[in-house]
Amino acid sequence: MAHYLTIETRGPGLYEFTDQLHPLAAGDGVMVVFVRHTSCSLLIQENADPDVQRDLRAYFERLVPPADDPSMGYLTHTPEGPDDMPAHIKAAVLPVSLSIPVENGRLMLGTWQGVYLFEHRSRPHRRTCVVQMMRAL
Amino acid sequence: MAHYLTIETRGPGLYEFTDQLHPLAAGDGVMVVFVRHTSCSLLIQENADPDVQRDLRAYFERLVPPADDPSMGYLTHTPEGPDDMPAHIKAAVLPVSLSIPVENGRLMLGTWQGVYLFEHRSRPHRRTCVVQMMRAL
Amino acid sequence: MAHYLTIETRGPGLYEFTDQLHPLAAGDGVMVVFVRHTSCSLLIQENADPDVQRDLRAYFERLVPPADDPSMGYLTHTPEGPDDMPAHIKAAVLPVSLSIPVENGRLMLGTWQGVYLFEHRSRPHRRTCVVQMMRAL
Repeated sequence: MAHYLTIETRGPGLYEFTDQLHPLAAGDGVMVVFVRHTSCSLLIQENADPDVQRDLRAYFERLVPPADDPSMGYLTHTPEGPDDMPAHIKAAVLPVSLSIPVENGRLMLGTWQGVYLFEHRSRPHRRTCVVQMMRAL
Repeated sequence: MAHYLTIETRGPGLYEFTDQLHPLAAGDGVMVVFVRHTSCSLLIQENADPDVQRDLRAYFERLVPPADDPSMGYLTHTPEGPDDMPAHIKAAVLPVSLSIPVENGRLMLGTWQGVYLFEHRSRPHRRTCVVQMMRAL
Repeated sequence: MAHYLTIETRGPGLYEFTDQLHPLAAGDGVMVVFVRHTSCSLLIQENADPDVQRDLRAYFERLVPPADDPSMGYLTHTPEGPDDMPAHIKAAVLPVSLSIPVENGRLMLGTWQGVYLFEHRSRPHRRTCVVQMMRAL
């Protein structure tokens, strides 16, 4: 049975939702988390120092500047705003799904790994993730 | 049982093959799609406006220019042509496999999500994908 | 049952461990490999010419320069050394998990595909991967 999670975002950045995944882990196997959008991403990243999340956001804003930046003048898909096509590009570079091993009902994340939704759009969005807990035979 | 799909490409760009995946979805679980090459990628991306696909290709050509571009003079793996090593780099940045949840025999893709093979080489290629439909217990 | 692999690294670069995965492949299904760290990555890449691995490392060092490079002056998470935050960024761009189809107990890798741990930190590290062999029903 698939589970659905809703994550409300308020602008670009990382939103941790590891705590929503723990109760869905069961038995031994793999949890698959999938985001049903093309302008945000999923990411497993360090959960200790919030500076890491800020720096990640800063890096990707420079890697893929807004469409009204002179360096991005070649973009053609711009009617939905300067943040839209860069959001699609970031959603290509960063994961749309995560596969996390589960053992004895526990997510086998490393000590410093948290699960995040990475929002790339400027305006608030309501994002949907599908979670499938796949048990090993 | 694994299924094999063949996708014929005619130069760099995105080739949608979502329609070849629908008939392979069954029950509840996760469909895993895997590409058996190191110079092309798989990608879930927006399927509405073809400008998005053009802009994605344009962005990645700038992110990883051909090996004969002065900025790439440090590359050493160049005997297979100026498009070869950049193709390997793009195949590192973009996914080699996709895990898509399935419910009641339907792929749980979002409304705007299509599944693409992203060809990075210049010449035509015949690409093979392996599809495994993993049912939940 | 999950399996654990340890990979010892001696500075940035790609470390192949395909041979450690073959004995864990069984039946038909998908093997999931997951790395429990946020400063290294997993990668499927060409295993024929070692120049490819060298060029991949050279490219990603330029894509994400060390924190003491003038172009990275905006980074704030720097107390753990100039290689730390760039390692987190590379670990966002490159995969944390791989899903590889298995048929008749054999990994369905392409002829030129090898499985690598990509170390992003400067000092030696002991890295742990979790492997789950998921059989199809």
